[in-house]
Amino acid sequence: MAKLTSRSDDYSKWYNELVVKADLAENSGVRGCMVIKPYGYAIWEKMRDEMDKKFKETGHVNAYFPLFVPKSLFEAEEKNAEGFAKECAVVTHYRLKNDPDNPGKLIVDPEAKLEEELIVRPTSEAIIWSTYKNWIQSYRDLPILINQWANVVRWEMRTRLFLRTAEFLWQEGHTAHATKDEAVEEAEKMNKVYADFAENFMAMPVIQGLKTPSERFAGADETYCIEALMQDGKALQAGTSHFLGQNFAKAFDVKFTNKEGKIEHAWATSWGTSTRLMGALIMTHSDDLGLVLPPTLAPIQVVIVPIFKGDEQLAEISKVALEIQAKLKAKGISVKFDNDTHNKPGWKFAEYELKGVPVRIAMGPRDLENKSVEIARRDNLTKETVSIEGLDSHIENLLKTIQTDLYQKALNFRKENITNVDSYEEFKKVLEEKGGFIYAHWDGTAEEEEQIKNETKATIRCIPLDEDVEEGISLISGKPSARRVLFAKAY
Amino acid sequence: MAKLTSRSDDYSKWYNELVVKADLAENSGVRGCMVIKPYGYAIWEKMRDEMDKKFKETGHVNAYFPLFVPKSLFEAEEKNAEGFAKECAVVTHYRLKNDPDNPGKLIVDPEAKLEEELIVRPTSEAIIWSTYKNWIQSYRDLPILINQWANVVRWEMRTRLFLRTAEFLWQEGHTAHATKDEAVEEAEKMNKVYADFAENFMAMPVIQGLKTPSERFAGADETYCIEALMQDGKALQAGTSHFLGQNFAKAFDVKFTNKEGKIEHAWATSWGTSTRLMGALIMTHSDDLGLVLPPTLAPIQVVIVPIFKGDEQLAEISKVALEIQAKLKAKGISVKFDNDTHNKPGWKFAEYELKGVPVRIAMGPRDLENKSVEIARRDNLTKETVSIEGLDSHIENLLKTIQTDLYQKALNFRKENITNVDSYEEFKKVLEEKGGFIYAHWDGTAEEEEQIKNETKATIRCIPLDEDVEEGISLISGKPSARRVLFAKAY
Repeated sequence: MAKLTSRSDDYSKWYNELVVKADLAENSGVRGCMVIKPYGYAIWEKMRDEMDKKFKETGHVNAYFPLFVPKSLFEAEEKNAEGFAKECAVVTHYRLKNDPDNPGKLIVDPEAKLEEELIVRPTSEAIIWSTYKNWIQSYRDLPILINQWANVVRWEMRTRLFLRTAEFLWQEGHTAHATKDEAVEEAEKMNKVYADFAENFMAMPVIQGLKTPSERFAGADETYCIEALMQDGKALQAGTSHFLGQNFAKAFDVKFTNKEGKIEHAWATSWGTSTRLMGALIMTHSDDLGLVLPPTLAPIQVVIVPIFKGDEQLAEISKVALEIQAKLKAKGISVKFDNDTHNKPGWKFAEYELKGVPVRIAMGPRDLENKSVEIARRDNLTKETVSIEGLDSHIENLLKTIQTDLYQKALNFRKENITNVDSYEEFKKVLEEKGGFIYAHWDGTAEEEEQIKNETKATIRCIPLDEDVEEGISLISGKPSARRVLFAKAY
Repeated sequence: MAKLTSRSDDYSKWYNELVVKADLAENSGVRGCMVIKPYGYAIWEKMRDEMDKKFKETGHVNAYFPLFVPKSLFEAEEKNAEGFAKECAVVTHYRLKNDPDNPGKLIVDPEAKLEEELIVRPTSEAIIWSTYKNWIQSYRDLPILINQWANVVRWEMRTRLFLRTAEFLWQEGHTAHATKDEAVEEAEKMNKVYADFAENFMAMPVIQGLKTPSERFAGADETYCIEALMQDGKALQAGTSHFLGQNFAKAFDVKFTNKEGKIEHAWATSWGTSTRLMGALIMTHSDDLGLVLPPTLAPIQVVIVPIFKGDEQLAEISKVALEIQAKLKAKGISVKFDNDTHNKPGWKFAEYELKGVPVRIAMGPRDLENKSVEIARRDNLTKETVSIEGLDSHIENLLKTIQTDLYQKALNFRKENITNVDSYEEFKKVLEEKGGFIYAHWDGTAEEEEQIKNETKATIRCIPLDEDVEEGISLISGKPSARRVLFAKAY
């Protein structure tokens, strides 16, 4: 197996190679669409299940809405339509027919043209709010707290596996509320749920904040987000939660009678995370040997590799290995005993390093004699010899330690790569020489934001929600600024 | 709440009303596409989770393939294309633009026409086998045992909620094997997995069999199926498993080197079940009061309804109700305590009957005095008074009993509605007067099958796989027949 390109040689190439070589995903025969391979999908399933649990714990239920949005519905909320119409898949016909000129070939049947074109959903606010219209009459029908797991399509021109694909998998929450306060609270709550998931499950520190008006979701009054820092110093938006005001309720005429008997438009939120998180996961933890996975997300948490010559040794090692496997499984730890005789131990070591298996147990005849095994951590590549007695508890604790260490390592990296700057010159210098997150002052105008973006490619990732407020003078205009905002180049 | 139309008055209307009134699904603004509402989706989630567990237990893994199939890939397997091209959604453009003549309106941008049209997948053999081509080189790459949970689109002209919709949710297994025997075994195994799921989880008896050549999946060499009998005497195909031979391997040039070093085409299966199972579930168990759910699939297994006057009584009842709820939850039973003060107990009783909650506990002040509650079973509408002491174990057992009873009831219904007939005249008479499954002899030709279908609308549901073989003379041609086959009118 050829080695991965190293991160320092070509970060982008390293990422692309790793996604394919670790069997996570690959490009398909359909432009911009990926195939998520079983190993990658198993990780996504763990993300999905954990998020789904958190959504249900916070009172949400799942439902399913149509894949297609009729053009007229799509048009109803103008900003949303404007934001998504430029990159969407349009269904215009509902039948193919045999090509009379080319036997065995099919052509679009011109007689099967749809009266109204259908858009493959790029996001579901339009189709969902046109449905909510029939569900909401009274304040007693509110709140509606629905989430959907679905595929969506955005016709991106430049695509990259997981990070930006024409089709991707995601969840989209769509809630309706009787009051503005309640909707704002929901949007904030779900952004916190995302932050909690990212930090405690993905071991990926994030900064919670608000988008500037120009970076908001098309149709939102306010967009909350979580922003993570990748190893190459670029930011990745890992989840967004939108307070949609009454925009969609007005566009789709969703009104209800409130407690006081008055008729009002409902208040809305939507919030989403996607398979993009897979990209974030990879770029937060992995190294030049391959994937590094936090134990929470590893399809295989522990692999046992026997070191043996001949069937007899394998049989002896297997006996002990299977006992260890059983004990670990009893503790809810997923274990693979790789007794394949085709591949050598060295090959297996490299393979499981590539796949990011958090803990490797190696066992040879000598280990058996000593009643011990060799344990290797994938995250920091350290090895230790551990007694077989009590091994299950040792590994249980080790997995927790790895989870914590991964988070701490990523947090340290972020700390080292956040710079406070106070002049535009310094800003450009840091951005070019170091990258990472930059905290700087901004005058609050779209003009300054735009100029910085055009001149440096850095955008305002968010206006952080933390309490760390410090007044200053904006980078270019020199106007007063109430607090620093977070800049970075971004995926 | 207006009563449901009764099954005897208008079965079809009863079904449509029930689906909507029990909050399972509704028609959307998109022709033929449904909205699966939270209550319906919660049931589907339980089906999905159980099937997913069974697939994993039988060695399968999940993956995800693109929504779109380029037209040229779709054409590659001729029969498959022929079978699905006539009812598919075709994406021809990738952008909308502002309509210069109508401000606020969008039109398809003629400059954004795709070079090659994309079909929204009606089934994924083509896209998946074009991918497997790159995954399969040696017998060591086989078998591939993949399942996908996805949405698919078939442009059906006449649609009905769950039973036949333009878009539906399903799972599709796609496996590749080194030998014919192994592929046949897989197709048979998965059909059995479906039968096991239907009978033991949905409490729905099914007959396992083979489709006749004219009823096979387009592109299959053999189609296995499970057939269930609905309460109106019509059959419903609840799952299919296909042995695809080497058809897709040949169409997509998927070859491998076998153990002997020879190059061969791979062998394939595919197998699927869909949200159609929701329709089967409803029509197997429900009655004129509403939904009847087997406990395994009920989002709420037990509802506690307090009977009270005034806050004080409610508070006293609540105390005991919450204790009962906690004990039931500890046993893994899902319980809702409906302490809503807006709706009367009678309204609640009707509501939970409509929703099919298997067990209702009613508690008033008198019950509290007697340290007992009233328990009502949804399936047979019987009531009993039960001591609060030991109630949790009582209910745990009761849920098991209900599950078994529902299966037995459906099995009895099927037994009563299977008729052996030996003449075409009798066949037509039974079909008209009684309906149900008919076991009759068939000469094995497409002609006789076609004639019977044209004249009676009954189709051969399957050639059963059971051992109950009895020779005879076919219905119309009078030719010898090795065994009876299963006829019925079908959904």
